[in-house]
Amino acid sequence: MTMSSSKKDERKVSQFAYAGLDRVIHERARLSVLTSLAAHPKGLRFNDLKQLCALTDGNLSRHMQVLQTAGFVMVSKSFEHNRPQTFCRLTAEGHRRYVEYLGVLEQVVRDATIKPRATRRAVRTLASD
Amino acid sequence: MTMSSSKKDERKVSQFAYAGLDRVIHERARLSVLTSLAAHPKGLRFNDLKQLCALTDGNLSRHMQVLQTAGFVMVSKSFEHNRPQTFCRLTAEGHRRYVEYLGVLEQVVRDATIKPRATRRAVRTLASD
Repeated sequence: MTMSSSKKDERKVSQFAYAGLDRVIHERARLSVLTSLAAHPKGLRFNDLKQLCALTDGNLSRHMQVLQTAGFVMVSKSFEHNRPQTFCRLTAEGHRRYVEYLGVLEQVVRDATIKPRATRRAVRTLASD
Repeated sequence: MTMSSSKKDERKVSQFAYAGLDRVIHERARLSVLTSLAAHPKGLRFNDLKQLCALTDGNLSRHMQVLQTAGFVMVSKSFEHNRPQTFCRLTAEGHRRYVEYLGVLEQVVRDATIKPRATRRAVRTLASD
């Protein structure tokens, strides 16, 4: 077996590993937050985001901190009608990583509906080595 | 505001909550296992499944136990060429719940690419109540 066909088989063999499902994004509440922000490119008020994701103040704060540390979201404070407002939006990096993540989700949906004969062949070949 | 329009707004307001992302299925390794099994309706040998998901023996065992407890997978033992084989497959319930889960994933992908004006209106209406 040549190096290149071996590498190709390895790719096929771990076809369902989905290393691209970054845990920072994949966690349900954070996926919810990022999808809300992706759908609202101009950003969202903290309170609107909380309602869209059905999260409590404490939960949303905690997940926003994880996402800020990762550099995926930014938070700004301002006044609106004399009341302080916290405004949340995706960063360029957050948008890029979220789009990459979505690509993997789409792959999961595609993989679930096919019967990859080539994969099974590759597994058998490696298993019999 | 009538009761029915209030309920409708509530649905819109928590549009990004994704309660259907069952944590038993959503965890990355288990999503990997379930997708492999969904793509192989006749089931997979434990060792092939391990390779397809790039998991260790211990990890796959642990996640299979969680999935068995939930009733989503079944495991059977048999002999093949005089060697014991562990065979894994989805149950009917596991298949049903996985398909439901996929529907939510597809919704995430759709939501990420739209700008739901109706949702923003609903949020503003509730926020100003």
